[in-house]
Amino acid sequence: MEMKLPGQEGFEASSAPRNIPSGELDSNPDPGTGPSPDGPSDTESKELGVPKDPLLFIQLNELLGWPQALEWRETGRWVLFEERLEVTAGRWSAPHVPTLALPSLQKLRSLLAEGLVLLDCPAQSLLELVEQVTRVESLSPELRGQLQALLLQRPQHYNQTTGTRPCWGSTHPRKASDNEEAPLRQQCQNPLRQKLPPGAEAGTVLAGELGFLVQPLGAFVRLRDPVVLGSLTEVSLPSRFFCLLLGPRMLGKGYHEMGRAAAVLLSDPQFQWSVRRASNLHDLLAALDAFLEEVTVLPPGRWDPTARIPPPKCLPSQHKRLPSQQREIRGPAVPRLTSAEDRHHHGPHAPSPELQRTGRKVPWYPSDFLDALHLQCFSAVLYIYLATVTNAITFGGLLGDATDGAQGVLESFLGTAVAGAAFCLMAGQPLTILSSTGPVLVFERLLFSFSRDYSLDYLPFRLWVGIWVATFCLVLVATEASVLVRYFTRFTEEGFCALISLIFIYDAVGKMLNLTHTYPIQKPGSSAYGCLCQYPGPGGNESQWIRTRPKDRDNIDLGLINASLLPPPECTRQGGHPRGPGCHTVPDIAFFSLLLFLTSFFFAMALKCVKTSRFFPSVVRKGLSDFSSVLAILLGCGLDAFLGLATPKLMVPREFKPTLPGRGWLVSPFGANPWWWSVAAALPALLLSILIFMDQQITAVILNRVEYRLQKGAGFHLDLFCVAVLMLLTSALGLPWYVSATVISLAHMDSLRRESRACVPGECPNFLGIREQRLTGLVVFILTGASIFLAPVLKFIPMPVLYGIFLYMGVAALSSIQFTKRVKLLLMPAKHQPDLLLLRHVPLTRVHLFTAIQLACLGLLWIIKSTPAAIIFPLMLLGLVGVRKALERVFLPQELLWLDELMPEEERSIPGKGLEPERSFSGSDSEDSELMYQPKAPEINISVN
Amino acid sequence: MEMKLPGQEGFEASSAPRNIPSGELDSNPDPGTGPSPDGPSDTESKELGVPKDPLLFIQLNELLGWPQALEWRETGRWVLFEERLEVTAGRWSAPHVPTLALPSLQKLRSLLAEGLVLLDCPAQSLLELVEQVTRVESLSPELRGQLQALLLQRPQHYNQTTGTRPCWGSTHPRKASDNEEAPLRQQCQNPLRQKLPPGAEAGTVLAGELGFLVQPLGAFVRLRDPVVLGSLTEVSLPSRFFCLLLGPRMLGKGYHEMGRAAAVLLSDPQFQWSVRRASNLHDLLAALDAFLEEVTVLPPGRWDPTARIPPPKCLPSQHKRLPSQQREIRGPAVPRLTSAEDRHHHGPHAPSPELQRTGRKVPWYPSDFLDALHLQCFSAVLYIYLATVTNAITFGGLLGDATDGAQGVLESFLGTAVAGAAFCLMAGQPLTILSSTGPVLVFERLLFSFSRDYSLDYLPFRLWVGIWVATFCLVLVATEASVLVRYFTRFTEEGFCALISLIFIYDAVGKMLNLTHTYPIQKPGSSAYGCLCQYPGPGGNESQWIRTRPKDRDNIDLGLINASLLPPPECTRQGGHPRGPGCHTVPDIAFFSLLLFLTSFFFAMALKCVKTSRFFPSVVRKGLSDFSSVLAILLGCGLDAFLGLATPKLMVPREFKPTLPGRGWLVSPFGANPWWWSVAAALPALLLSILIFMDQQITAVILNRVEYRLQKGAGFHLDLFCVAVLMLLTSALGLPWYVSATVISLAHMDSLRRESRACVPGECPNFLGIREQRLTGLVVFILTGASIFLAPVLKFIPMPVLYGIFLYMGVAALSSIQFTKRVKLLLMPAKHQPDLLLLRHVPLTRVHLFTAIQLACLGLLWIIKSTPAAIIFPLMLLGLVGVRKALERVFLPQELLWLDELMPEEERSIPGKGLEPERSFSGSDSEDSELMYQPKAPEINISVN
Repeated sequence: MEMKLPGQEGFEASSAPRNIPSGELDSNPDPGTGPSPDGPSDTESKELGVPKDPLLFIQLNELLGWPQALEWRETGRWVLFEERLEVTAGRWSAPHVPTLALPSLQKLRSLLAEGLVLLDCPAQSLLELVEQVTRVESLSPELRGQLQALLLQRPQHYNQTTGTRPCWGSTHPRKASDNEEAPLRQQCQNPLRQKLPPGAEAGTVLAGELGFLVQPLGAFVRLRDPVVLGSLTEVSLPSRFFCLLLGPRMLGKGYHEMGRAAAVLLSDPQFQWSVRRASNLHDLLAALDAFLEEVTVLPPGRWDPTARIPPPKCLPSQHKRLPSQQREIRGPAVPRLTSAEDRHHHGPHAPSPELQRTGRKVPWYPSDFLDALHLQCFSAVLYIYLATVTNAITFGGLLGDATDGAQGVLESFLGTAVAGAAFCLMAGQPLTILSSTGPVLVFERLLFSFSRDYSLDYLPFRLWVGIWVATFCLVLVATEASVLVRYFTRFTEEGFCALISLIFIYDAVGKMLNLTHTYPIQKPGSSAYGCLCQYPGPGGNESQWIRTRPKDRDNIDLGLINASLLPPPECTRQGGHPRGPGCHTVPDIAFFSLLLFLTSFFFAMALKCVKTSRFFPSVVRKGLSDFSSVLAILLGCGLDAFLGLATPKLMVPREFKPTLPGRGWLVSPFGANPWWWSVAAALPALLLSILIFMDQQITAVILNRVEYRLQKGAGFHLDLFCVAVLMLLTSALGLPWYVSATVISLAHMDSLRRESRACVPGECPNFLGIREQRLTGLVVFILTGASIFLAPVLKFIPMPVLYGIFLYMGVAALSSIQFTKRVKLLLMPAKHQPDLLLLRHVPLTRVHLFTAIQLACLGLLWIIKSTPAAIIFPLMLLGLVGVRKALERVFLPQELLWLDELMPEEERSIPGKGLEPERSFSGSDSEDSELMYQPKAPEINISVN
Repeated sequence: MEMKLPGQEGFEASSAPRNIPSGELDSNPDPGTGPSPDGPSDTESKELGVPKDPLLFIQLNELLGWPQALEWRETGRWVLFEERLEVTAGRWSAPHVPTLALPSLQKLRSLLAEGLVLLDCPAQSLLELVEQVTRVESLSPELRGQLQALLLQRPQHYNQTTGTRPCWGSTHPRKASDNEEAPLRQQCQNPLRQKLPPGAEAGTVLAGELGFLVQPLGAFVRLRDPVVLGSLTEVSLPSRFFCLLLGPRMLGKGYHEMGRAAAVLLSDPQFQWSVRRASNLHDLLAALDAFLEEVTVLPPGRWDPTARIPPPKCLPSQHKRLPSQQREIRGPAVPRLTSAEDRHHHGPHAPSPELQRTGRKVPWYPSDFLDALHLQCFSAVLYIYLATVTNAITFGGLLGDATDGAQGVLESFLGTAVAGAAFCLMAGQPLTILSSTGPVLVFERLLFSFSRDYSLDYLPFRLWVGIWVATFCLVLVATEASVLVRYFTRFTEEGFCALISLIFIYDAVGKMLNLTHTYPIQKPGSSAYGCLCQYPGPGGNESQWIRTRPKDRDNIDLGLINASLLPPPECTRQGGHPRGPGCHTVPDIAFFSLLLFLTSFFFAMALKCVKTSRFFPSVVRKGLSDFSSVLAILLGCGLDAFLGLATPKLMVPREFKPTLPGRGWLVSPFGANPWWWSVAAALPALLLSILIFMDQQITAVILNRVEYRLQKGAGFHLDLFCVAVLMLLTSALGLPWYVSATVISLAHMDSLRRESRACVPGECPNFLGIREQRLTGLVVFILTGASIFLAPVLKFIPMPVLYGIFLYMGVAALSSIQFTKRVKLLLMPAKHQPDLLLLRHVPLTRVHLFTAIQLACLGLLWIIKSTPAAIIFPLMLLGLVGVRKALERVFLPQELLWLDELMPEEERSIPGKGLEPERSFSGSDSEDSELMYQPKAPEINISVN
């Protein structure tokens, strides 16, 4: 089942922490590996001994209503991005990138330079603070009193009434009634409070026009000990910074903009870092100047300053902005970071140390079960269970179809349960979900037609193939051949994936069209018209039927008395025989099947897209899109049941026995086959071994990527060993073959993500790690086993619906690979092409050439697949590695680096470390360096499942 | 036919000139009414006598390869937006908003302040210029020579090989072969040259690191007379500005960024204006400082400076940036501008002077035909002809369906041709296309069922309705009632449009489902099974059939000899009688019809969306999307013909006679009806008059909007008069009724747009006006009349395909109104809502309340429509005006201004001119002022056609 496509949204885990530098939440400059402020494994920063700067919430209170009705009103707030109060609409704007006018920053600078700067102010309350701030010689005592009264006035906050779920665990168990107007309680109940991490501090900017002042009054205060300053801020946080910007009448919205400038400055991580450590005015101004040095400027004629930019997907990594002394302070973090960055850029096939490490899983075994004691694991079980069952149904249905019942839904359920559970208990990487996958399915289909061509007894032959595959895999384990996986670059993987996807699409459409042969469409002149019911009564004369029929099929002379127009099933029940050319056709089935097929396909596609729509809360969207296949199958079944037509249904045995009639659960080792076929089976087994090796190991590499921060290590060899053993078992029982399934395993990991719940407006949650344990997988497969008793329900599933889901899987897998994107580029005029990094660095003709070569390889594979030699296609997939090697003579290494990845030899051949393309090559393009730090989306989706 | 939905893309005409200030092409500060640099009606600026600043093309040549292989290479270019050369990829980037680093601007400023500034330099060649520029005392003679040689070196330009169509008419008729390497010829053949308007000038920035210099060398030159400086620039344009930024080694990409800063500065319209008039260094620096004052600043921690921002849809209007002295210089333009702006904000129902003006069309009459002598008119005729024919087919088909053949496709063709051509010849606004529209169609359907309820002779009754409608309309013309149209605000229009659209959707789906009654689905246990063919032969005994049939329908005792299972048509042809319950059912038709219905609907929807996709050249995209209905109908017909099933087809008479059998072309005035029905017809006629008045006048107001810059005036009263007269004619002939059709008329205007072909990268073409003439419309209708002979082809169109197109029309019309957007808001969580201006100013609960009231009104209208009193629905639509009036008590005027428009009284009640909401109300939101200048998309789409 296609639960989450890598490269689309399944990889939020890896991309989230890079998008928004987590360093701003915990002030750790390393965006990739930064620890979170809370959570069970909050160990890193403690180990490193780096003091964390708390998160800062900044609020702008404006003085409005001069001169009659002076009041303070909150008009903006900042954590990572800016939110403005839409005064007339009474709502907070969406978080957006703040934009400033340059003059307001400059005015702010001069106001601060002339104003009062108190660093480490010891004030313990708002009153003390106000007294300190107003101790300016330019103010007369009377004005000072007025000003103090004004500053102590309670500001108006806009309180959102809509409740949001607590993000950091509620610290206020008691819930006061909404009627009470105590602002302090409102302050505590503010939903924003629950979104901010514990230890967050506040900064307040007070700005406005105050007519009785003759000259501007600026003050910047850093409190020595952060203290809650009454109801000054919207949320009850201890305040650390306080900035006052008042003055006489100014043209335009000067104070508003200056206040915003101060708030934006304070929200900048770099400025914040500096100003927390500033010891005098000079340091403060230097930090402001450093900020100005780094701002991006948009020319006035080309940009509307009132347009709001949504939070970007990719931000520059903060560590590049750190001044050198700051880097030194946090010394231990920097080398860690660099190594993480490097490993990140290795891509999926880098020789990660896990590939060598085996047999170290035992110490983790107890915790593999204890770590599952978390509520999240329940929802993960439900999600993966539904995905697994859907997968078992669809693949079981397809296998049953393809092997004339040698495999079936029941075998699929049983096999999934047994193999999956066993793998979960034994495997090195227990998060892996074993499942039927596209490549193995395609191979089995070819193997079946091969065995039919040679009139073999299929299951015994298959058993020998399984035995040989297990042997070959054990040899591969013994020789530690898994390192060879590095030669499968994206080129190979995409060829693999595209071929399997195309076969899926072709098969789905082909099977659908086949139905129109089984249930022909009745055209006006069609001969398949009319059906009589004949009773073997006294006047009946069956020989007359037989005599007239061959002579004139369409014009039968009815010399019969006991005949009626009863429908065939009714006729048979009443003891008659349906006669006539139209008796075997069922009208309307062909088009209705087509409708079911299209409905389930488009519905699944549409639900998949719901995730990115604006409608419904995100929980609903996620649910709809995660369960798109399940819902599409349910819709199809509902439609079918509603109309009650005799569409072809899923074949399910009525009792617990193999789908193929007349065989026991254990496959006999020879059956009707000559003995030497057990030796000859080694040849197809070799091909299958290639397929299984590629499928299993590439999945394993993807799952063990660095960005998932797995703690307990992987087990490449152990896993392949398990797969080999299970291969033996399933072959002996005549059950489907299983390997690790990329998509469903990624969905499993994704549902077990530990995240900091930093729902700061505009920010993505911070990824902490995966709950690595064996229990969720085990429970999923136990449930799958129990679902065998669902069989009576499954027979209501129409086959066209399953074909629609197959089509959906094929299309979804095909559209997830970069190859498809490049094929689309062929159809786009150059000026409409998206701004892909690839296109910034590789000439378009070279990109098109690469795509054309891939297309040609795919065409060749397709031709082979269509010949009787189809079964050797795994070998041809391996041939792609050779083609890729030959491409080194056509393309430059830097082009291949952008279009593909480098092979081990190429990596070595490149000067330096050669891991970041922008460092090694494109000298004049260093401006892309930031964009390069975007995580390469793991686009490989080798298994269609 | 739904050709172009207003508010989606039909109004590029109006929005384009506002999006990109045209003032930058012709340096006229008025973005809305600015004249273009060429074109037949380039009169305004000449009249005003304002000298135009030419367009400036700016190129950055960088000095690369120090110290070994020094060469100049073009790395960026600017006209409105920035294009960068992707060096490794060898392509120009897409145009984007340039972003600068603040330090590079400051460094540039200090370099210019210390450098050489030559204003009005008399140099006549590159050599002279280089000599002048290098005459700096800091350079030794030897270095000066080296520098001069370097500056005279030919720069490398990246030449795009892809040809683009000439935008300004090619000035180079001779085409040299591509093999010749003459750079000057390349320079001339550069496709960019053809995109720039005549008179464009060039500015060149030369920047780079030059190791032998000990201190930076900056020079800024404004040439007195622009002169082509050899192959300095990519395109052979006379150069006006020349900027040199060289210096010793600097960290990072200092000179590149400084060069970009200089180029961006020069591309800024305001800076350009100032620097063209600068008389000394001080003026130059002042212009730079003015630029800095206005830049937008993005904080470094929240924005990746390497991200590229695509050209925005909306730019700030440049006139706001003009300094006061500049405004004075161009005095005459400013009042014009203001008035245009004001008129613009009047919305569709402002009392535009055209509403009073009539009878001034005669002087234009000859030019109404002469102005059509342009190639563009041919393509307009083809486009509108296809749209009209599609409309005639679909509406004819629907009318024929709804009136049991009293109307039909033939009547639709004939009526469209006659009425349309007559209107084109007589009307005040000859661009209007008369057509069957949704409201009239809905009314006619109701009128027909009403007349059937009272057993009336439909066509004579209809004739009297027509006579009365004509009378009422003439009264409306005489009383100049058209000004009342101002009371139909968006609230009324959207209610109108939504109701008609919903009726369309409901009818389309209903008619489709009705087909499943006509062609029932044969379920397994269905009784409609079996059919025998009986010959009236000697052994035949018909009475036995009749006797047994009522007794046991399903179990007929066949005591017959001469019977066969021939299909019914075959049976009849052979002289037999088809007998049995299954004879009248045709299998597979129901589902196939559903498939055709869905296919045509989704195909039309998909083609509509092709316009905004990235694939294919824009011409192809536009074609596919413009002809979406035609293509969808063709696809449906093709599918139907391919399978050859007996789907229900469009009813077309075999010869040229009315669709209803047995009537002549002239309707008899009474028929079988009692005489007093001719008086009673006044009542439904009153209702129809309301409908026609609303439909006709709202369309007229939309078509005569200021933004279309029609020169020949409108004719509100004359047009209504024509409609009334044609009403009489079509009623007497029994043809459909016609009013002006919004969508198709807008498509007509759109296809006749005159545009400056300023295809400057990133810029939209500049709208100049409409080719106002009568000929295109006339030819379209003559062709439509000739298409009556297409009738034999039309009978191949399956009805389900037409139902699919109806559904598409309904859905497209419904999705184009703001009401639908607000209904969608109901389903969106507040934080996912788009950043609509509406939501920035009106509280969400008020928006939802307004939407809920509209929904309630719509529900009420729907209930009335479902009762026997359905025919009074036009009165209820008028009732919406009352509801809208009552809303003034619920909503504040400023809320209504955002949600709707103001009624005449409200406009007066608002202080000041009350036309720009941000000026009158939202005091603290003046930052939205720029966004307010976005054109209000004409979202009204009252006629579903």
